[in-house]
Amino acid sequence: MPGTPPTRYAYLGPEGTFAEAALISAVAPGEGSRIPAPGVPAALAVVRSGDADAALVPLENSVEGSVPATMDGLAEGDPLLITREVFLAPSFVLAGRPGTTLSDVRSVASHPHALAQTAGRLAQLLPGVVPLPATSTAEAARQVAAGEHDAAVCAPIAAERYGLTALADDVADRSGAVTRFVLVAPPGPLPAPTGNDKTSLVAVVGDRTGALLDLLREFAVREISLTRIESRPTRERLGVYSFSLDCEGHAADARVGEALAALHRVCDELRFLGSYPRADGRENKPVTDVSTDAAFGEAAGWLERVRAGRV
Amino acid sequence: MPGTPPTRYAYLGPEGTFAEAALISAVAPGEGSRIPAPGVPAALAVVRSGDADAALVPLENSVEGSVPATMDGLAEGDPLLITREVFLAPSFVLAGRPGTTLSDVRSVASHPHALAQTAGRLAQLLPGVVPLPATSTAEAARQVAAGEHDAAVCAPIAAERYGLTALADDVADRSGAVTRFVLVAPPGPLPAPTGNDKTSLVAVVGDRTGALLDLLREFAVREISLTRIESRPTRERLGVYSFSLDCEGHAADARVGEALAALHRVCDELRFLGSYPRADGRENKPVTDVSTDAAFGEAAGWLERVRAGRV
Amino acid sequence: MPGTPPTRYAYLGPEGTFAEAALISAVAPGEGSRIPAPGVPAALAVVRSGDADAALVPLENSVEGSVPATMDGLAEGDPLLITREVFLAPSFVLAGRPGTTLSDVRSVASHPHALAQTAGRLAQLLPGVVPLPATSTAEAARQVAAGEHDAAVCAPIAAERYGLTALADDVADRSGAVTRFVLVAPPGPLPAPTGNDKTSLVAVVGDRTGALLDLLREFAVREISLTRIESRPTRERLGVYSFSLDCEGHAADARVGEALAALHRVCDELRFLGSYPRADGRENKPVTDVSTDAAFGEAAGWLERVRAGRV
Amino acid sequence: MPGTPPTRYAYLGPEGTFAEAALISAVAPGEGSRIPAPGVPAALAVVRSGDADAALVPLENSVEGSVPATMDGLAEGDPLLITREVFLAPSFVLAGRPGTTLSDVRSVASHPHALAQTAGRLAQLLPGVVPLPATSTAEAARQVAAGEHDAAVCAPIAAERYGLTALADDVADRSGAVTRFVLVAPPGPLPAPTGNDKTSLVAVVGDRTGALLDLLREFAVREISLTRIESRPTRERLGVYSFSLDCEGHAADARVGEALAALHRVCDELRFLGSYPRADGRENKPVTDVSTDAAFGEAAGWLERVRAGRV
Repeated sequence: MPGTPPTRYAYLGPEGTFAEAALISAVAPGEGSRIPAPGVPAALAVVRSGDADAALVPLENSVEGSVPATMDGLAEGDPLLITREVFLAPSFVLAGRPGTTLSDVRSVASHPHALAQTAGRLAQLLPGVVPLPATSTAEAARQVAAGEHDAAVCAPIAAERYGLTALADDVADRSGAVTRFVLVAPPGPLPAPTGNDKTSLVAVVGDRTGALLDLLREFAVREISLTRIESRPTRERLGVYSFSLDCEGHAADARVGEALAALHRVCDELRFLGSYPRADGRENKPVTDVSTDAAFGEAAGWLERVRAGRV
Repeated sequence: MPGTPPTRYAYLGPEGTFAEAALISAVAPGEGSRIPAPGVPAALAVVRSGDADAALVPLENSVEGSVPATMDGLAEGDPLLITREVFLAPSFVLAGRPGTTLSDVRSVASHPHALAQTAGRLAQLLPGVVPLPATSTAEAARQVAAGEHDAAVCAPIAAERYGLTALADDVADRSGAVTRFVLVAPPGPLPAPTGNDKTSLVAVVGDRTGALLDLLREFAVREISLTRIESRPTRERLGVYSFSLDCEGHAADARVGEALAALHRVCDELRFLGSYPRADGRENKPVTDVSTDAAFGEAAGWLERVRAGRV
Repeated sequence: MPGTPPTRYAYLGPEGTFAEAALISAVAPGEGSRIPAPGVPAALAVVRSGDADAALVPLENSVEGSVPATMDGLAEGDPLLITREVFLAPSFVLAGRPGTTLSDVRSVASHPHALAQTAGRLAQLLPGVVPLPATSTAEAARQVAAGEHDAAVCAPIAAERYGLTALADDVADRSGAVTRFVLVAPPGPLPAPTGNDKTSLVAVVGDRTGALLDLLREFAVREISLTRIESRPTRERLGVYSFSLDCEGHAADARVGEALAALHRVCDELRFLGSYPRADGRENKPVTDVSTDAAFGEAAGWLERVRAGRV
Repeated sequence: MPGTPPTRYAYLGPEGTFAEAALISAVAPGEGSRIPAPGVPAALAVVRSGDADAALVPLENSVEGSVPATMDGLAEGDPLLITREVFLAPSFVLAGRPGTTLSDVRSVASHPHALAQTAGRLAQLLPGVVPLPATSTAEAARQVAAGEHDAAVCAPIAAERYGLTALADDVADRSGAVTRFVLVAPPGPLPAPTGNDKTSLVAVVGDRTGALLDLLREFAVREISLTRIESRPTRERLGVYSFSLDCEGHAADARVGEALAALHRVCDELRFLGSYPRADGRENKPVTDVSTDAAFGEAAGWLERVRAGRV
C-alpha cells in the first residue's frame, strides 16, 4: 500500500551475511520481517512476485566493482525502484568456536571473495593453512559451528549468529573497502526529495561516435553531476550500448526531470531506477541559481508570456 | 486588436526607397496606409508611440552586413516583435528625367552605399562624372526630378515615383545582393507556426571562456539550427557579450520553447524578438523524430508517470 | 623585406578622415609616407599590388557594426595579414571657417553616418538647419573651407587640416563609440607574440545542425576564448556558412596552433587573417596551467615516450 | 628483447582454467612456456618481477562484468602494457570420472561464479544435489579426478586435463557469455597498428560537474569512439574520479595521439595501458577524411606555413 513502509525485507542471504548486516544498519530490527534469499536474482524475484515488500542487494563494492547480478537484475524484467542506498564497510573477522586459539586452527573457510580480500593476513596469522571455499561467508561460519572447519572469515554478525568468537578482527588486507547496497521495491511513490538525492538510470543508445557525449550533454547543460557511469556489455545486441549511471538530484527536481525527459526522447531505451537519499556521506554539488526549481519555474512563466506575445 | 492586420505601416523612407519597395512586395497596396520615416529609429519610434501599427526596416544586407540601427533599435527600448521577414534583391537603376541620354549626364547622385555598390558600372557608363552623395536613393531621384542633378542611382520604384526614366538597368557591380527587411509590431499574438519558421533573439552572457559554447549547446541538444549569429559590441559594459541570433523553429514548438526557457535561465539577459515564417526561400532542417512536439509531449507524459512512481 | 617596417601606408581617405587620425595615433608621422585611398577596396588593392606596404582600414565600429567592405575584402582575394589593431574613439567636432559662430550657420554637411551619430546635438545647436550629405567627413570639411557650406561634422584632424575652427566639440549623441581599425600587410613574418594577442580567422562550414558548435568546440577544448564572432551572409553559395571570428592568443601559441590546425582539417575552408597584439585595453583571460606552451610541450614529450612504449 | 615474442606466459591458473583455454587459443602450444598463477595479482606480479614475459588475465566478462583485480592491478603499480586482447566464449561442461552417469552423481563442485551461471541447468540435471564451492573450476575437476566429488562444472580443457568425461555439454543457463582476456607485458614497443586497433586508458579527473564531459570531448572533437567506459570507485581519495576506458584507434594514429596528449594535459592523472589489435570481431568506425593521419599531416604543414607567415 503506498505510503506504508515495507515490512517484509528480502536480503542476499544466508543469515549472517554482510547484506543482513547492512539491512540491520538500515532498518531497525523491530520493523518488519527479514527473508534471506539464496542469491540476488532470488531476492529480486520475491519482490517481483509480491512475496516480499523490498529487497536489500549489493550494487557495487569498492574492491570487487559493480555487482552484475544486481545491475542486470534491475535493468531487465519487471520494473523495480531503488528507494534507499546503504553503505557498509565490511569488517572481516577470523572466527572460531569458543576456546579455539589461532594455533589450533588447521582449516579456514570462507567465500572466495572474502578469502581473496584477506589472503595476506591469513598467510600471516595461519601460515601453512590452505583456505577452503564456501558458498558464503555466513555458510563458512555455520560450517565452523558444525565442526566442519576450525575457522571462518566472516562478518561479525555471522560469528555472533553461530556462537563463534573472534580469533582476529579486521583481517582485510586493505582497509577502506565499502559495499553499496540498495533497497529495491515495486513501483510506487518515490521517496520525498531531501535536497541531497541520487537518481539511477539505465540508458541504451545507438552505437555511433558521440552517442555517449550526447547523452552526457543532457546532464551537463542542466548542471547535473554524475556520480557513477559504466558501459554495460550488450554482446547479444550488436550496435547498441547500454550505460548504467547515477546522477545527483531527484526526479522531482526540475532540472533532473527535464534531463530525464530529454533522455527519454533521445535514447533508444531509458529505464528509471529510482531517486533516493544520498547516503555515502557526501553532499551533492550546490545547485547554482540558474538551475534551481525556482529558476525553472520562473523561466516557464516567462516562456508562457513569450508564447502569448506578452514580452 | 489581436488578429486584426496592422493598417498603418511605417517604413524607412523617404518614398521610393527599397524599404517601400519591400513593403509593397509584402503588403498589397490596398491594405492599410504607409508612413515614410526619416530613419530606422524614427520608424521604430512611431510603432512604439502607437502612431503606426508596424514598421518595415532593414535588418541585414548581403553587401553591407547587418544594420546596426535596427539591431540595436530592437535590442533596446520598449519591446517590439518581428512578425514577418521580407527579402528584396535591390535592383539599382540609373535614372534621369525623360529625354535625358547617358551622354547628357554631367552629375549623378545617390546614397553613398548605393554609389559604392555601383562604382564600377558608373565609371564605365559615365566616365569622368564624379558621383555626389544624397541622404537616400529616393532623395537623389527627387533631386534629379527637381533638376538639381542629371541622374540618380535609385530603386525602380523611385524612378517611377518621380517620373524618371531608366538610362541603365541593373547597374550593381555585383549581382545577387539581397536585403532582409523585418516587419516589427508591438507585443501581441505571435504569427501562427507554419512549420518553416524562424525565431530571433538577443542574448547577453558573461565574459568567460565557453560562455558562447554553453549558449549554443542549448540549441544543439535540442537539434535546433542557427541561421545567423553575431556578437554585438558592448563597449559600454565591460565584461559582457551580447549575441544577436536567429534560429530555426517557432517559440510555440516544444524544442524551441524549452531552449528559450533554458536560455532565459542561463543568460544574463535574453530578449525574445519574435517567431515568424521563414521567407528566404529555404526550408528548415527536418525535425527528427526525437525532437518533434509529439516526442516532447510523450516524454512529458512519461516523466509524469516516473515522478508518480508508475514506471 | 621581412623585418623592415612598412613605410608606405595606405589608409581610408581622403586626408582628414578618422582613418588618418587612427594611423597617426599608431605610426609616428615621421615613419613612412601615407597614401589616402578612396575606399576600403582601393586601400587593400594598393597593398596587394605592392604600391603600398600596409593599409589601415576600419573593421568594426561600436555604433555602425562591422565594416563589410573590410570583412569581405580580407576574406576574399589574395591573402593579406592583419599585423596590428588600432582603436580610435571618434571625436566629432562641428567646425566652421574662422570667425564663424553658431548663429551664422545656415548649412551643415558630413558623411551620412556622422550625421546620423550627431543628429540630436545638431538639432539642438542648429535648429532648423537641414544636414547635407558628403562622401566623407573630411570632404565635408574641405567643402566648408571652400565656402560651399557653413559647417561640417568632422574629425578634429580634418578641421585642423582645412583651417577650420571648432564651433562645438564632441557633438556625438552617444559617447563611448569606438572604431577598430586594422593594419593589413602582405603575407610575411607574424608579429612576435606579446602574451596578449588576438588571432583573426574566416571559417567556412557546411550547413548542418551543430556545425558551428563543432567549430567552437575546437576553441573550447583548448581553453581559447573568442572575442568576436559573426556569421557572414553567403547568399551566392547555398548550403554553406561563413564565420568571421577573433580569438585570444597567437598562432605561435601551442593551444592556438593546435586549434588552427584542427579547424583547417574540419572546416570546408579556413583563412588565417593574422595574429597581432591586442590593443583594446583588455587583457586576455589567463592561460591555465594545462593549456600553456609548456604543458603542450610536456604532453608532446610524454606522447613520444608512450608511442615508443616507454611508459 | 624488443621484437622477440614473449616466451614465458603466466596465466590465471590453475591448469585447466578458461584463462589457459584462452591462452591456448591465442598462442600456439609450441610457442613458449606457460606458468599458472594463483590469482590475477600473482599473474601480474610475475611479469613485473621479470619471472614471466607476459600474462593472460581476464578483464571483463559479459556476465560477471569487469574484473576489478585486473582493472586495479593495471591501474596501479609498475606500468604494464596490454599487447593483445583475446575473447573466449566459456563453454561449461558437467564432467565426471569415466563411467560415471548423471544418475550416479551425488555431489557437484565448481567455482561459485560457474555454479551461479549454471544453477538452472544443474537443478534440472541433478535435482536435489547441492552444489559445492571450489576455488576454481579447474580445482573442482581435480577434486573429481581425486574422487572427492562426483562431478565438476568446468572448462572442457580441465575435463581433458584431469581425465574426466562430459556428462553434459554447454550447461550454462544463458548462452552468449564471453570473457575478454588481455595479454599484458612490461613496457616495450607497441604492437604495430593494424587499422583496427583499440587503446586502453585510466584517467583520473577532479570531481567537478562536467569533468567527464570535458574528458569525452577530447575524444569527440577528434572523432574517436569509445568502446568501454567505467567509473572506478576511489573511496580512499575523496574528490577525484577515476575512469577506465577503451577507445578505437592506436596511439600511433595522429588523432589518437593528439587526444592522448590532450588528456595528459587536462587530467589529474593519465595512465596509458596499451594499443593493440581489436579482436572482438567488430570493425572500428571508418575514419572520416578530416581525421586521417594524412589530414593531420597536411594540417600540420599548413600550420607551419601560417606561423611563418606564408599564407
